[in-house]
Amino acid sequence: MSQFKYNRLDKANVAVLLVDHQTGLTNLVQDFSPDDFKNGVLAMADIAEYFKLPTILTTSFEDGPNGPLVPELKEKFPKAPYIARPGNINAWDNEDFVKAVKATGKKQLLIAGIVTEVCVAFPALSALEEGYEVFVVADASGTFNQTTREAAWLRMQRAGAQMMTWFGVACELHRDWRNDIEGLATLFSNHLPSYRCLMQSYDAGRKAGKR
Amino acid sequence: MSQFKYNRLDKANVAVLLVDHQTGLTNLVQDFSPDDFKNGVLAMADIAEYFKLPTILTTSFEDGPNGPLVPELKEKFPKAPYIARPGNINAWDNEDFVKAVKATGKKQLLIAGIVTEVCVAFPALSALEEGYEVFVVADASGTFNQTTREAAWLRMQRAGAQMMTWFGVACELHRDWRNDIEGLATLFSNHLPSYRCLMQSYDAGRKAGKR
Amino acid sequence: MSQFKYNRLDKANVAVLLVDHQTGLTNLVQDFSPDDFKNGVLAMADIAEYFKLPTILTTSFEDGPNGPLVPELKEKFPKAPYIARPGNINAWDNEDFVKAVKATGKKQLLIAGIVTEVCVAFPALSALEEGYEVFVVADASGTFNQTTREAAWLRMQRAGAQMMTWFGVACELHRDWRNDIEGLATLFSNHLPSYRCLMQSYDAGRKAGKR
Amino acid sequence: MSQFKYNRLDKANVAVLLVDHQTGLTNLVQDFSPDDFKNGVLAMADIAEYFKLPTILTTSFEDGPNGPLVPELKEKFPKAPYIARPGNINAWDNEDFVKAVKATGKKQLLIAGIVTEVCVAFPALSALEEGYEVFVVADASGTFNQTTREAAWLRMQRAGAQMMTWFGVACELHRDWRNDIEGLATLFSNHLPSYRCLMQSYDAGRKAGKR
Amino acid sequence: MSQFKYNRLDKANVAVLLVDHQTGLTNLVQDFSPDDFKNGVLAMADIAEYFKLPTILTTSFEDGPNGPLVPELKEKFPKAPYIARPGNINAWDNEDFVKAVKATGKKQLLIAGIVTEVCVAFPALSALEEGYEVFVVADASGTFNQTTREAAWLRMQRAGAQMMTWFGVACELHRDWRNDIEGLATLFSNHLPSYRCLMQSYDAGRKAGKR
Amino acid sequence: MSQFKYNRLDKANVAVLLVDHQTGLTNLVQDFSPDDFKNGVLAMADIAEYFKLPTILTTSFEDGPNGPLVPELKEKFPKAPYIARPGNINAWDNEDFVKAVKATGKKQLLIAGIVTEVCVAFPALSALEEGYEVFVVADASGTFNQTTREAAWLRMQRAGAQMMTWFGVACELHRDWRNDIEGLATLFSNHLPSYRCLMQSYDAGRKAGKR
Amino acid sequence: MSQFKYNRLDKANVAVLLVDHQTGLTNLVQDFSPDDFKNGVLAMADIAEYFKLPTILTTSFEDGPNGPLVPELKEKFPKAPYIARPGNINAWDNEDFVKAVKATGKKQLLIAGIVTEVCVAFPALSALEEGYEVFVVADASGTFNQTTREAAWLRMQRAGAQMMTWFGVACELHRDWRNDIEGLATLFSNHLPSYRCLMQSYDAGRKAGKR
Amino acid sequence: MSQFKYNRLDKANVAVLLVDHQTGLTNLVQDFSPDDFKNGVLAMADIAEYFKLPTILTTSFEDGPNGPLVPELKEKFPKAPYIARPGNINAWDNEDFVKAVKATGKKQLLIAGIVTEVCVAFPALSALEEGYEVFVVADASGTFNQTTREAAWLRMQRAGAQMMTWFGVACELHRDWRNDIEGLATLFSNHLPSYRCLMQSYDAGRKAGKR
Repeated sequence: MSQFKYNRLDKANVAVLLVDHQTGLTNLVQDFSPDDFKNGVLAMADIAEYFKLPTILTTSFEDGPNGPLVPELKEKFPKAPYIARPGNINAWDNEDFVKAVKATGKKQLLIAGIVTEVCVAFPALSALEEGYEVFVVADASGTFNQTTREAAWLRMQRAGAQMMTWFGVACELHRDWRNDIEGLATLFSNHLPSYRCLMQSYDAGRKAGKR
Repeated sequence: MSQFKYNRLDKANVAVLLVDHQTGLTNLVQDFSPDDFKNGVLAMADIAEYFKLPTILTTSFEDGPNGPLVPELKEKFPKAPYIARPGNINAWDNEDFVKAVKATGKKQLLIAGIVTEVCVAFPALSALEEGYEVFVVADASGTFNQTTREAAWLRMQRAGAQMMTWFGVACELHRDWRNDIEGLATLFSNHLPSYRCLMQSYDAGRKAGKR
Repeated sequence: MSQFKYNRLDKANVAVLLVDHQTGLTNLVQDFSPDDFKNGVLAMADIAEYFKLPTILTTSFEDGPNGPLVPELKEKFPKAPYIARPGNINAWDNEDFVKAVKATGKKQLLIAGIVTEVCVAFPALSALEEGYEVFVVADASGTFNQTTREAAWLRMQRAGAQMMTWFGVACELHRDWRNDIEGLATLFSNHLPSYRCLMQSYDAGRKAGKR
Repeated sequence: MSQFKYNRLDKANVAVLLVDHQTGLTNLVQDFSPDDFKNGVLAMADIAEYFKLPTILTTSFEDGPNGPLVPELKEKFPKAPYIARPGNINAWDNEDFVKAVKATGKKQLLIAGIVTEVCVAFPALSALEEGYEVFVVADASGTFNQTTREAAWLRMQRAGAQMMTWFGVACELHRDWRNDIEGLATLFSNHLPSYRCLMQSYDAGRKAGKR
Repeated sequence: MSQFKYNRLDKANVAVLLVDHQTGLTNLVQDFSPDDFKNGVLAMADIAEYFKLPTILTTSFEDGPNGPLVPELKEKFPKAPYIARPGNINAWDNEDFVKAVKATGKKQLLIAGIVTEVCVAFPALSALEEGYEVFVVADASGTFNQTTREAAWLRMQRAGAQMMTWFGVACELHRDWRNDIEGLATLFSNHLPSYRCLMQSYDAGRKAGKR
Repeated sequence: MSQFKYNRLDKANVAVLLVDHQTGLTNLVQDFSPDDFKNGVLAMADIAEYFKLPTILTTSFEDGPNGPLVPELKEKFPKAPYIARPGNINAWDNEDFVKAVKATGKKQLLIAGIVTEVCVAFPALSALEEGYEVFVVADASGTFNQTTREAAWLRMQRAGAQMMTWFGVACELHRDWRNDIEGLATLFSNHLPSYRCLMQSYDAGRKAGKR
Repeated sequence: MSQFKYNRLDKANVAVLLVDHQTGLTNLVQDFSPDDFKNGVLAMADIAEYFKLPTILTTSFEDGPNGPLVPELKEKFPKAPYIARPGNINAWDNEDFVKAVKATGKKQLLIAGIVTEVCVAFPALSALEEGYEVFVVADASGTFNQTTREAAWLRMQRAGAQMMTWFGVACELHRDWRNDIEGLATLFSNHLPSYRCLMQSYDAGRKAGKR
Repeated sequence: MSQFKYNRLDKANVAVLLVDHQTGLTNLVQDFSPDDFKNGVLAMADIAEYFKLPTILTTSFEDGPNGPLVPELKEKFPKAPYIARPGNINAWDNEDFVKAVKATGKKQLLIAGIVTEVCVAFPALSALEEGYEVFVVADASGTFNQTTREAAWLRMQRAGAQMMTWFGVACELHRDWRNDIEGLATLFSNHLPSYRCLMQSYDAGRKAGKR
């Protein structure tokens, strides 16, 4: 008998935690190119919106050098719980944040943030300890360099977090294209330039066939 | 006493799952050079054919931008179960696919596909949960970039999948050169240019010795 | 005395040639990540629009696998000369294309395209021979891999082309922020995520100072 | 129920082991640039000082080619236990060293040293066996090349060590900015040039706002 | 007036020199993956055949460790001048080789070989001195590592050689798709897996449009 | 209480298995530079000799393209059990080989070979299953490329093998410089050029001090 | 006869131009690690100070997102001409800047800045045109990524600029250690951690020799 | 007519300058792995000896941290002019050195040293100015990192130096294997592990053929 239980991401049971995606902190990220990282963060945000996942925003010292929350996120989630932490580095140390997480009633947490080894790893480890299933959205999370990232991944791997990237998250949540072909295709077209090209080429080819 | 049980790949007990090796999706792969990736996929296919492993082909939306199954695969396995999934992203969510897997009666699954973190990882995790032994053929599986690949590998590693590459698969299945020296050598010659050169140099050297 | 004459990009004397930015060909590009490449191409397009530079679009076999022109370009330059070449690989071999270039009356050419060593290099070399000053927009031009790119750069360098990237092009054309601070800042904000963050952080800091 | 217990770094329960940061050995390190490595080591030292963590220095054959302890460390910890090991390669094989560790009364050990797979890994594995919680400070530990580093990380990961980098260590120890904003900011400003720039930009922006 | 004269590759004026593509020497090449290198060499050979370019084969000590000429080349050019050099390292030092080159009557030489800095660079420099136009086919030429390759490129660049890759060579020779669409497409399909996928996707799309 | 038991390499309890370090197979290795790989293999051999570890040599098809055992190894271990396997790919499938291993009476196995995912991984997994402690000497083991290596490491990591490199092996076996300063220093001087330089600089400095 | 004239850097004839080393712009630099870049900039500044080279500071829009001049530079050169450009992107377009350059009476210019392809390349090209000898301090100049850097280097190379790094600059200016051994050694010790270690090891070795 | 004159390395007209290959300085080199660099230096030394090229050794401050000349070089050239420069950084500034160069009567100079941008580039530029032909042995020359190396190469390229690596040097000097097959093969066998394997495989193959 297998010991492994595949608890897939279930859109009815997932909450999204976006931790410290602030403009200043974004300028510290060097394990992705700025274009790739921006795309990863916005793709994750679009996923949260598309699947109507309860989403919690939090920032650290947003009135200082860390800078304000990236405006695109603020605009996309106008009604989301928004916890501007007065000082806790681990978001899970903030009561309001934990309360907001618990209020969602979800047991699966998608976590992304800046920087990976702190703003992502700390709440990920805290949540794992409390029995949540934790899925790290690796390409919506950035840090100083690749060595730091690799160390952070290993620490989280050891604790039981699952390493994912936004495309896998979208696919595991959607499960079946037939649930909404148009919607998923739009999401991919907006965040996967190479997939967008495939679609455009296909449409052109099909039209050519009709002529 | 050791806890580890080395259940080697056993050609009498292995099925091969080739998931979504479609022409459009192949154009998304950037964690391998196109030459390396093409070689990895065709090598895996040749292995399946050479060892007469039951092989299952499946595609996702092959009438759209994802494109048709790579023609070389279609030609090599004309009688293989071929499941054109109407929408399920995880092939294991498709009853026909699972039925086809079960029909093989095998408990070891070699899985390869595009993209690694979805079309490979999802059925891999599902199969692990159902008690199958899962072997990922890493160089016959491609995705958007190396970061995504690394995250996918860690997730599968955690769940118990075994990471392999096609050369190791062939060797573990064959076990002993004496089972068919000619056949294995041909396989390697066709897919390992550096090994092919070794053979050609050797033949030339031996002939030189005979003169 | 210096032999070098610095003929800067002069917005009154520049034309932009966008060569074969087609959806199929874009899927061949692997010397940039898809996000980075998309951004480079669209940034160059925005520069052409912002500085009102005469822009010429051309495609190769757009009714076949090369695919149609990237739609964003088509939309941005609805009135631009658009030469769908019936077969000439070097755009400069097409009379209509050369006529369109000459009709602009400009002597400085910004060239970008897919793939770098063909669709960029060939017209670049042809234009250099005819006495044009050629500036290659390297990050709006893509090809199969980095080795190919490096060879193409060396060939063009030898012939007298100047290697640039879109940010340098914008700066050399604009010359002085005071010509339009708002406009240039918007351009940068849209295509340099890290610069956008600097601006957002700055605005937040200034507001904090005002409180 | 979760099996994972998140025993965070607790400044009341942590000791720091700096193993063989000697001038000769430093010249062997090639998995980091010299600037990056120097910064990582000195950052870890500043953390130890800032949080007043009991710190133990040890060297191997400091009168030979391995060279003396890096002077900056000697100066920063004038009263720290300093064990110049007469020959033991694994510091944990040295009774005085283990005595010094035990004398701290701490159960969490932050370990850094040169070279990673020996001077860090050996005492890390020894300490794990004795029931300590071990946290490796990966960017204050260096070795011959990246392949060696990766192998060392995997060996320690398997044994239960937690891979961290100095920034994460500082954050996990500090827990809340409000404990001392000034102090933590100074630490970051001294060792994260990009964060220092953020702070300076912010101050300038705020002043601009006040005018 | 421009000083640059763009003497394009002209199929009526080109000869191909394939220097020391021997099985042993191929095993020394490490600046390309074996798959990529094999493809580059065979693509160049197919170009020579397709455009009916006079082609000269030469080897160095093929009865020793350098090994015999790669069999695929021998088979493709059964009637080509074949100079098994008795010892000259620079092929141009061999009278028969130079005679064969001169016998072609061509003034443009495409050169590829193993290793780049010797078997390619030496005859390239010799030919340049004698007034030939030299085009190096960089991805059909291999050597020990990338540093060596880069040095070799710079030396040849300084002497006036033009750095190209096989795809650019094919395009510059063909000039216009209309000269033979089928033929060129087949060439690309055989040696550019990503282009082949584009074609297959396109065909499928067009068929879909027809339904 | 800790669960981890640190069973260090114990020179009284270690055997060394050198698997398929043959001249032909060495030409397939591309995850190390040839200089680095040669050094790793010979360093491991010197360790075996220096610590008088029972060493077992084995080859696969040494009369064919795989080539003979690297001569340096043959010469260093003239009396070692030498199993020229008639066809078994996994050395552990060869009775003579296993007999030779068992005859050593050791329970810790240092394994190195070509290629990593087959000639190392297969006997490593077999030995783990039989209760041996397995230590992979990663830099004396080579394969086709880094992707393959990484997959092989993960598979072995999962099964319980410990990833090491030759320097760590030497240090863990020696334990204390005082056991033989001269001997260990010579080993390092011969295989670590950077350490050799440290020693030479030190000697010069000391002499300078004496003047 | 040689055509090349080696006009070495002559400390009596050199001026240093530090262009736009501002805190905001520094956060855009990703072609160096932040530690390496900070060190390069400060090393160049120390060189200017040590050799008493006339130094000119200039900034672009320092009251906006570009941020203020890096404070360390401001402090080191309190009396240097400081041109806060009101809008000119190319510093050479600013009359005060050019006046300041001319006032130095020097004909050799060391230029460093952010970003390389604009703030360095533009004044470099302008200065070359006016007959100055231009030396680019490549490791005190940063930009968005390596591709951009490489393009900028090629453009400047073509125009006649000489690519250097700070260590070469210091050595070419100093010419002979005997001019001031202590001073140069201090400079190197402060900015080359590996050289600093050599010195410390040497001192220790010499002392050991004296005992 | 061609302008390029291919003045090949002519063993009757070449002198070798080995500049500052000292033990301390070697520890600063990080643009090559230590194994690769050691091999490159010793290969160049063996070439000088094999072709009986007049060789000049020089060091900088060998009684200080730079360390003594690498002993292997001292031993190989016991009678070579040996200039321990009292302080000149550019060896060409030392009269004895230049006298030694002139005394050789050669006009082609092979230069290698540590560090590339200083100890190689400075005398290279000086020698070029005096009309010597300069060939840089790139893989026997090392420096701090790859960026520095690339800048140094470009500076030397601009001045007219030819970039080579030791293998090309040996081949260009030898010209024809028949001049001494044994000798050249030994040189390659000693410094090209992959070529050595080819030879050993070939010998084995030939012997097999004889049986």
